[in-house]
Amino acid sequence: MSPFVAEYIGSMLLLLLGNSVVANVLLSKTKGNNSGLIVIAFGWAVAVFVGVYSSANSSGAHLNPAITIGLASIGKFEWSSVPSYILAQFLGAMTGSSLMWLAYKQHFDATEDGDAKLAVFCNSPAIPNVFYNLATEVIGTFVLMLGALLISAPETKLGALDALPVALLVLGIGVSLGGPTGYAINPARDLGPRMMHFLLPIKNKCNSNWGYSWIPVVGPVTGAVIAAFVFQLIQS
Amino acid sequence: MSPFVAEYIGSMLLLLLGNSVVANVLLSKTKGNNSGLIVIAFGWAVAVFVGVYSSANSSGAHLNPAITIGLASIGKFEWSSVPSYILAQFLGAMTGSSLMWLAYKQHFDATEDGDAKLAVFCNSPAIPNVFYNLATEVIGTFVLMLGALLISAPETKLGALDALPVALLVLGIGVSLGGPTGYAINPARDLGPRMMHFLLPIKNKCNSNWGYSWIPVVGPVTGAVIAAFVFQLIQS
Amino acid sequence: MSPFVAEYIGSMLLLLLGNSVVANVLLSKTKGNNSGLIVIAFGWAVAVFVGVYSSANSSGAHLNPAITIGLASIGKFEWSSVPSYILAQFLGAMTGSSLMWLAYKQHFDATEDGDAKLAVFCNSPAIPNVFYNLATEVIGTFVLMLGALLISAPETKLGALDALPVALLVLGIGVSLGGPTGYAINPARDLGPRMMHFLLPIKNKCNSNWGYSWIPVVGPVTGAVIAAFVFQLIQS
Amino acid sequence: MSPFVAEYIGSMLLLLLGNSVVANVLLSKTKGNNSGLIVIAFGWAVAVFVGVYSSANSSGAHLNPAITIGLASIGKFEWSSVPSYILAQFLGAMTGSSLMWLAYKQHFDATEDGDAKLAVFCNSPAIPNVFYNLATEVIGTFVLMLGALLISAPETKLGALDALPVALLVLGIGVSLGGPTGYAINPARDLGPRMMHFLLPIKNKCNSNWGYSWIPVVGPVTGAVIAAFVFQLIQS
Repeated sequence: MSPFVAEYIGSMLLLLLGNSVVANVLLSKTKGNNSGLIVIAFGWAVAVFVGVYSSANSSGAHLNPAITIGLASIGKFEWSSVPSYILAQFLGAMTGSSLMWLAYKQHFDATEDGDAKLAVFCNSPAIPNVFYNLATEVIGTFVLMLGALLISAPETKLGALDALPVALLVLGIGVSLGGPTGYAINPARDLGPRMMHFLLPIKNKCNSNWGYSWIPVVGPVTGAVIAAFVFQLIQS
Repeated sequence: MSPFVAEYIGSMLLLLLGNSVVANVLLSKTKGNNSGLIVIAFGWAVAVFVGVYSSANSSGAHLNPAITIGLASIGKFEWSSVPSYILAQFLGAMTGSSLMWLAYKQHFDATEDGDAKLAVFCNSPAIPNVFYNLATEVIGTFVLMLGALLISAPETKLGALDALPVALLVLGIGVSLGGPTGYAINPARDLGPRMMHFLLPIKNKCNSNWGYSWIPVVGPVTGAVIAAFVFQLIQS
Repeated sequence: MSPFVAEYIGSMLLLLLGNSVVANVLLSKTKGNNSGLIVIAFGWAVAVFVGVYSSANSSGAHLNPAITIGLASIGKFEWSSVPSYILAQFLGAMTGSSLMWLAYKQHFDATEDGDAKLAVFCNSPAIPNVFYNLATEVIGTFVLMLGALLISAPETKLGALDALPVALLVLGIGVSLGGPTGYAINPARDLGPRMMHFLLPIKNKCNSNWGYSWIPVVGPVTGAVIAAFVFQLIQS
Repeated sequence: MSPFVAEYIGSMLLLLLGNSVVANVLLSKTKGNNSGLIVIAFGWAVAVFVGVYSSANSSGAHLNPAITIGLASIGKFEWSSVPSYILAQFLGAMTGSSLMWLAYKQHFDATEDGDAKLAVFCNSPAIPNVFYNLATEVIGTFVLMLGALLISAPETKLGALDALPVALLVLGIGVSLGGPTGYAINPARDLGPRMMHFLLPIKNKCNSNWGYSWIPVVGPVTGAVIAAFVFQLIQS
């Protein structure tokens, strides 16, 4: 696979599985209705596993603009490839959440709560506050990026065998640091599906909460860049 | 082991463990009564792990007619072996669900709800609808087949060490895409036990819902064939 | 380590962790009180992982008289070593459950329900019935033994790297086949702690249910021997 | 990385993730509120995985003064390096729990229960009793140390590939032996965050329960040293 296709397929699988586990837990009349955080955290962890395993050998499995930018910021990835990686990640994320919508279409129709429907696609903070929401996303993505760099050191490029450690890392970030903002830790994971929530003809949907949408973009990129520089510092 | 025996043993273990975890959660007076989706999803994932680990080195661990047909459709498996593989998968599935019935016999007797007894053997949709139920099964099996192909690439034949990645993949499909139809994603997994539900002398059973039975056959085969062609496309 | 010490240490760790997880879930005022089957099933699975990992390279990690006898019955283990293995397994199991009792002493004192205290040590059937209880233990141990043989084939001797597959196998047997009888699947696991329940000065204990005690001995040995012969048959 | 930096980073990640999972479950208005022991146990297990994976190749991943002292007591680690290791572990633990506090600041503000806020940082016994609380911590750390030594034998130094077995070991200790005292099993894990609870300006906090604070120090060190000598005994 070309790196573009790999990032597209990996991000598509990540969001199809990741958005779907939230749909299963939050939407009405599903078999997983109200089955709790443990199901959501494992669902996203496995989504990462499948996405990374599928794409690592072809593209290094970024699947996340924050990781792409973080790696480029310390010279571990060429800036010239950044735009195509990010484009593939967004297109993949949007495809994945659209397929999720198709699989759960009847359950979107059966659900009254518009906030729940939005939460299937993207994140909202438990207690809205610009500073602390941003801080939580920075810290979560800092752990993701530093962990991924240490897992893949010294090459700093993920391979298929790194899929399990990275999935466990995301499981940990989910159960541990997901409490306040729902761990976006990835601009494509949040903004891509948010766009699909806006575009798709979802019955009785609420607005797409664009006021919050910049935090899961700026927070993750900031956290990843800080982690990349900390990594450089402690390795030298 | 011969491939036939391996497919039979693997499918038997898959269905014995997989049907049993549903029995444990749904039937009355069991120690796992009402223990939730997380138990069911891990139960099926481990059932896949044990089935694949046991059979991979001998047969490639299809354990699923959709995978067998999907591989054959892109020339990765000989069409001449397809009938014997599918026969072994169905016989194994029927043996496994019969042993489950023996282990849980007293709990079938103690359970009033006929729908729950049917659900132990095979799937029913949360919201019946031919198009969307089919779509969900197509999407779920598409993820299974594409994931399995990428995991086993370039040989496209599973080995014992692929058992864990495939089990995680099925864990993910279960928690994420199992919400609307219960993730059959395998004709032998659904139709084989459905036949046993029909044949076995289960106390106070309801009818075997034959009207739905074609969807977990046609959906998975369609999804697997689509995934196989997508795989060919992105690999070239 | 000598094989005797390895079987002793492995069985001690198995029962210390395994009995303790049930104590955590069933006894009063613990931090894990009423946390459900998923906790118990993972607790036992990890207990198996730790026990097998610790002992496999020295003794082959039987930790279970049924496995020892099953292997001997098909010539994969010398009959002359069977008695010392079984002795070590029982001594280890009794030590482990005694340490569990020490760790949870205050919670045994705080618990009223005598049946719960017995359940921490050993199994009782959900619905008592000699034939079906025996059948369930036979089937559960059949899966354990056949799975362990296929995992360790062709050497049929477990190594440390088999600890994870075997632990997953036991996780699967627990959630899937544990519903009717609580998956003893190991005479030392049930009878050893049952003896300690009888011997230890546990406050307000009920009787040790000796009437049931032969089933988790005869069932597992029968299931393991059947699996061993099935394994020989399908391998040839 | 230098061993000092590795122990610092590993302990920081361990406590950031470990303290945070408790915050997610216990504090008000989080997305993981009241999600149960299974979430806490997996959260700490993954925290160990990430901490060990990140530091093992540089420092051997002690991340725990009890392990450092236990190894030194049997000549597997130089006494001259013990002070710097312990200093790094405490500094890392204190940094990690401070970052946790930042991420969950709003939820600390929203929580009334002072005991819950303390429990996020450090342990309290379910039933206070010096002898039995100490015994439980000794037994828990005995299992941790003996398990870690057997996992890393014969080198008795953890590598990155030991991260998963050690994480599973801690998962098992958590669900099995965490019932009475909450499994500190690590002086830096308990005392470091307890100091931060004392120092940080947490709204409406209760006292830091210094009367209990010596038990999660003395118990773990005692248990680790006993395990180290038992290990020497059984290996010879």
